[in-house]
Amino acid sequence: MTQDATPLQVALIGQRFMGRAHSNAWRQAPRFFDLPVDPRQHTVVGRDAASLEEFRERWGWQHASTDWAAVCAADSGIDLVDIGTPNDVHEGPAVAALEAGKHVACEKPLSATLDAARRMRDAAAAAAGKTFVWFNYRRCPAVALMHELVREGRIGEVLHVRGTYLQSWGGPDVPMLWRFDKERAGSGAHGDLNAHIVDMARFVTGEEVARVHGAIEKTFVTERRAADGSMAASTVDDVVSFLATFSGGATASFEASRLAQGHLNRNTLEINGTKGSVRFDFEDMNVLEFVDATESGRTRGWRRIMCTDAEHHPYAAAWWPDAHVIGYEHGFTNMVADICVALGGGTPRVPLPDFADAFETQVVLEGALEAARRGAAVDLAELR
Amino acid sequence: MTQDATPLQVALIGQRFMGRAHSNAWRQAPRFFDLPVDPRQHTVVGRDAASLEEFRERWGWQHASTDWAAVCAADSGIDLVDIGTPNDVHEGPAVAALEAGKHVACEKPLSATLDAARRMRDAAAAAAGKTFVWFNYRRCPAVALMHELVREGRIGEVLHVRGTYLQSWGGPDVPMLWRFDKERAGSGAHGDLNAHIVDMARFVTGEEVARVHGAIEKTFVTERRAADGSMAASTVDDVVSFLATFSGGATASFEASRLAQGHLNRNTLEINGTKGSVRFDFEDMNVLEFVDATESGRTRGWRRIMCTDAEHHPYAAAWWPDAHVIGYEHGFTNMVADICVALGGGTPRVPLPDFADAFETQVVLEGALEAARRGAAVDLAELR
Amino acid sequence: MTQDATPLQVALIGQRFMGRAHSNAWRQAPRFFDLPVDPRQHTVVGRDAASLEEFRERWGWQHASTDWAAVCAADSGIDLVDIGTPNDVHEGPAVAALEAGKHVACEKPLSATLDAARRMRDAAAAAAGKTFVWFNYRRCPAVALMHELVREGRIGEVLHVRGTYLQSWGGPDVPMLWRFDKERAGSGAHGDLNAHIVDMARFVTGEEVARVHGAIEKTFVTERRAADGSMAASTVDDVVSFLATFSGGATASFEASRLAQGHLNRNTLEINGTKGSVRFDFEDMNVLEFVDATESGRTRGWRRIMCTDAEHHPYAAAWWPDAHVIGYEHGFTNMVADICVALGGGTPRVPLPDFADAFETQVVLEGALEAARRGAAVDLAELR
Amino acid sequence: MTQDATPLQVALIGQRFMGRAHSNAWRQAPRFFDLPVDPRQHTVVGRDAASLEEFRERWGWQHASTDWAAVCAADSGIDLVDIGTPNDVHEGPAVAALEAGKHVACEKPLSATLDAARRMRDAAAAAAGKTFVWFNYRRCPAVALMHELVREGRIGEVLHVRGTYLQSWGGPDVPMLWRFDKERAGSGAHGDLNAHIVDMARFVTGEEVARVHGAIEKTFVTERRAADGSMAASTVDDVVSFLATFSGGATASFEASRLAQGHLNRNTLEINGTKGSVRFDFEDMNVLEFVDATESGRTRGWRRIMCTDAEHHPYAAAWWPDAHVIGYEHGFTNMVADICVALGGGTPRVPLPDFADAFETQVVLEGALEAARRGAAVDLAELR
Repeated sequence: MTQDATPLQVALIGQRFMGRAHSNAWRQAPRFFDLPVDPRQHTVVGRDAASLEEFRERWGWQHASTDWAAVCAADSGIDLVDIGTPNDVHEGPAVAALEAGKHVACEKPLSATLDAARRMRDAAAAAAGKTFVWFNYRRCPAVALMHELVREGRIGEVLHVRGTYLQSWGGPDVPMLWRFDKERAGSGAHGDLNAHIVDMARFVTGEEVARVHGAIEKTFVTERRAADGSMAASTVDDVVSFLATFSGGATASFEASRLAQGHLNRNTLEINGTKGSVRFDFEDMNVLEFVDATESGRTRGWRRIMCTDAEHHPYAAAWWPDAHVIGYEHGFTNMVADICVALGGGTPRVPLPDFADAFETQVVLEGALEAARRGAAVDLAELR
Repeated sequence: MTQDATPLQVALIGQRFMGRAHSNAWRQAPRFFDLPVDPRQHTVVGRDAASLEEFRERWGWQHASTDWAAVCAADSGIDLVDIGTPNDVHEGPAVAALEAGKHVACEKPLSATLDAARRMRDAAAAAAGKTFVWFNYRRCPAVALMHELVREGRIGEVLHVRGTYLQSWGGPDVPMLWRFDKERAGSGAHGDLNAHIVDMARFVTGEEVARVHGAIEKTFVTERRAADGSMAASTVDDVVSFLATFSGGATASFEASRLAQGHLNRNTLEINGTKGSVRFDFEDMNVLEFVDATESGRTRGWRRIMCTDAEHHPYAAAWWPDAHVIGYEHGFTNMVADICVALGGGTPRVPLPDFADAFETQVVLEGALEAARRGAAVDLAELR
Repeated sequence: MTQDATPLQVALIGQRFMGRAHSNAWRQAPRFFDLPVDPRQHTVVGRDAASLEEFRERWGWQHASTDWAAVCAADSGIDLVDIGTPNDVHEGPAVAALEAGKHVACEKPLSATLDAARRMRDAAAAAAGKTFVWFNYRRCPAVALMHELVREGRIGEVLHVRGTYLQSWGGPDVPMLWRFDKERAGSGAHGDLNAHIVDMARFVTGEEVARVHGAIEKTFVTERRAADGSMAASTVDDVVSFLATFSGGATASFEASRLAQGHLNRNTLEINGTKGSVRFDFEDMNVLEFVDATESGRTRGWRRIMCTDAEHHPYAAAWWPDAHVIGYEHGFTNMVADICVALGGGTPRVPLPDFADAFETQVVLEGALEAARRGAAVDLAELR
Repeated sequence: MTQDATPLQVALIGQRFMGRAHSNAWRQAPRFFDLPVDPRQHTVVGRDAASLEEFRERWGWQHASTDWAAVCAADSGIDLVDIGTPNDVHEGPAVAALEAGKHVACEKPLSATLDAARRMRDAAAAAAGKTFVWFNYRRCPAVALMHELVREGRIGEVLHVRGTYLQSWGGPDVPMLWRFDKERAGSGAHGDLNAHIVDMARFVTGEEVARVHGAIEKTFVTERRAADGSMAASTVDDVVSFLATFSGGATASFEASRLAQGHLNRNTLEINGTKGSVRFDFEDMNVLEFVDATESGRTRGWRRIMCTDAEHHPYAAAWWPDAHVIGYEHGFTNMVADICVALGGGTPRVPLPDFADAFETQVVLEGALEAARRGAAVDLAELR
């Protein structure tokens, strides 16, 4: 970090997958970036006291706590609360921390319900602190470059958007977990996966979704083996797909599934414009494909751009010499760096999503479910 | 061909792109296949007498005519009428030929309207002759193998179907042509391109589409330069996308566009099942990709199968030694061979579409347009 | 063909794989190209009289003969002798036909031995007829475009050349055939496969190989089951690889194998220059990959160019509308078209190899074997 | 780390690219792995005192020093010396540390000259400490899986090995640096890049190279702009390629270049065996491609295996949930973990290279240069 950088006291809530990913990011960002504020790993909060101490020590947090309300309190000594918990426990700590004047970085999707998301957005609007939502793929260099090229007009007017997030781990042999219970998880593939590709599409195009034209929400696996050996109802969607149009007129399709054999983490986004196209596939995450339709048909074709060039590609300069690829976790580390830039008064290279921004993604997700319920198109203005 | 094969006198109507493709197929099939009937290129029919004679000579037709009714007449000496004309002139010759007791091979889609398609289906049902529809991609070896693997249960129960047919030639610089006039062409990308991927999906899964959940039909390019220099209204769709479910419960999406930069002839179909997945991309047409989810995760992955093995792959034995790729036109030649097999009393390796089969594809296409008009889901039973 | 084109009476020697490929090409070229001469399929010559008549009828030859000397005689009425026989029977008919004033189109490699190839080259130099060698891959559109881009300087000065031709059909279960007998076949993978990639590299770079730096010639499968059940010695190479430098200083490697599992017809060529690179893989034959190193690193990457654009890509205009791929056999048909162009006094779009040209490829092949024998570098000037 | 793990005091020499990569690995390994020893970042050693303190603080070293001899002294309190310096300063600290009873982890290649490498190997043989060489790609999950599959016989007997390491950054616009001076750098692309692919090929096959059949060593860029504006001689190789045979008879080719446009970090290895093939490309580092030739030709093809499955793939369990890709630096972190396993008395999942092992790679590199000098084959037994 830069000399005399102001300390930023951080508390993290969550010690599972996202707890690890965020901890690593807070640890690593100051190693690779010169930051205008100095993040300090003050406290980690978790429910499971038994494992929390081991987590704290391993990941370098100074303190551990099982009381999220305490770290969100005005006098906790915490500047930023980082929320890495399940969707149904985002609102409580987020609103508490905002009301206490703190900054908040919250996992995606913003919340399990549109109503809660609206309250969070409103709380953020009324608060002094800044908000951030962990749509980590924005900070994948290839996605950030995609954003830049599209916003600079390199593909012209946007005509078509296609997003898929396909996984294959959710078959009937997977036992019952809380995440298959709609009461607790809110949704299945939809909130988990469509949330990402809707955010990415909004980020890259700079446009909002105006209308959902139709949707399918489907549960193929309706029961699963519970821990006690009985069969329990699996109530979340396995797949949600929907068609939409963006404010600028572009057509769009989105699909998320946990039952698509052969796809492990197939987070893809393609944008076709009047002057060219771009596409991204997270399974080959260091690469952006781009076709420039203004060049001669003789040598025109999809270019496989490896986004590892320090001079040209977002975030590449922070890491290794040119041509050395990065991985999944680096998106989080890049995001910590940009949070620090923003809190230091600077402007990140590509926009960070705040609660107001993430609320728009939530509107789209809700619009898709509503279209599936109605069997008819939904104008998203209804839901905002 | 085999010794003493019965002659099959063929008349072709059409001398444009499909006229060339069909002529080549009738010429080539007997060279590469041993056929149970002996196709003879009796007469080519075209409107443009000026160019017809040159076409006749080049492509080896014995006679030329500008009168399709004459070749469809009972006493014309023709056994099979091959229709390669625009969609709005399919019904006339097809019904006439069927009523005269002839076989008919008709270009896809079956017709420009669902009503005409229904009349053609009914005429076929009442006639003695056999009918065939030129859904040529079924006879691409990779698509035929896809059909076999899915129907044998290699991917288990079908869960998701995804078809796209993306092209990029239809931008605003393309001048006004009859095919951009809805009155004459019926539709744009939809009838031209979605027809293929809907047929392929039905062929590969063996299931019918039950419901369209939503659709987008959109015209981005609304006027084009006419031959006289004025601007004329371009009234067909540039893109149609829709969501559907199949009779067995699988979710599906289809999209056809002529404005997708970077895609030249991106006819793709992917099927995800409980035990595996298959996918096809016509831009790499000799390849089928397959993942077998029953094998260990250690070595599981998409396999790139080059479908050129004479022992194992459909149609491969007819052509060159193993590992020598074929091209676009071979699908037509393979189809001529299978038409001859069917007319000789045999059973082609994979099913040929007849008028009743192609009518079902037409129902799906109409269902998508109806869903777009209604802004609501459509149960296809309504349309049959 | 064009009006009043002069007839070209052709005799084909050979009725196996190449006999079929050449027959098809002579039949098809006038359908797709407007040719300045009018090729007539006069006579096919084969040893096996039993099957020859069926071949003649199927492929449209007017006459059949078992006497190649007769068709090569001055008064045979034949203008061009097309030789599609094994390597050890190229010289006889080629020299006879040349001495009789005929044109000759000979399969590759030019001959089984360098001495025979030299005699053929000298006979061609002394003769009035034109000579052609069936290095068919030059007329694959992607390879022809590769030639054009490199010769126009689009990749700058050539630095590295890499060619491989990998197949996998030659394992120990394949029974003994004449082609595994060095006495009859001359060589194994080397003459069959390295011949192609050496020719392609010379064609694309426009340079000659100056020196072979080292080579490996290896036979892994040393015996095979003969027809009578006994084991017979398999004496040809299974693999030959060698390193070379071109006249302009570029480094090069070539490798041919029949034992490379996973590769069916992996004929690849890559050229790296100071300003860019090009690469080709016959298993994806309609595609040329190109990287332009003069453009910004921000959007630089390998472009996948589908070489099916009638306006820009060699041979594409003759076939189907843009974006419709062709297959293996089209290289032969394109070559027949270019032979007709050359005999009609025109200049083909990319150079045709004659005997003098093919002799240079033979020198390289011999140089590689000599380097393997010596265990030392060989200056090819020694062998010319 | 595990409870009560023995501390391992580490000193790192080097603060450039490798200094950063090693520092990160020592920091990260205990976060992701449960290690049997507890690595402590004791001291970092660098020549540039001005920047060293900032480096020390950023990367978490407790002490900094400009005196490598001091940390290598017997009483320095250091258990393991990690050498991340240029090749010509490997021998000094390595031998000193070994003589002082310490463990040594040395960057690759082992040394700048074969003689120095031999002395290092001998010092290791005589010492109590263990040695490790940073051939980091062995610990890329896809390469480790490649090793396992080949050693288990999944591809049968090894027939062909093909390694390339192609980069493009070394053009004439790159100014003069010490690494272009043969006196200081020893070699160019050869020691830097061929070292990796030779090690990988030895690791995966478990065989030694027996003979180099021929080689090219070439310098295209012979002068570069020095800091003072004058032109200085650039004396290292830009490209070295060579042919070899392995002890088991397999043929092999290796090529390293810094002038191959379009290739950024194209570290590839392919092995063809009697029963299948495997191939790796570092530009898509999370993927191993595998073809199993024992399965039916009907569904046989290259499988794209994403090596991110915790249950099956080496190192995957340590990182993120299945299907989340890792990057370049993780190979180093995985290696630190394995060094700790080895020093804790365990056996890493795949073998770690020690000085004796790395000496064999050095013999191959020297053999290639000798073959280039001689213009003739070299039996490597000569050089050992």
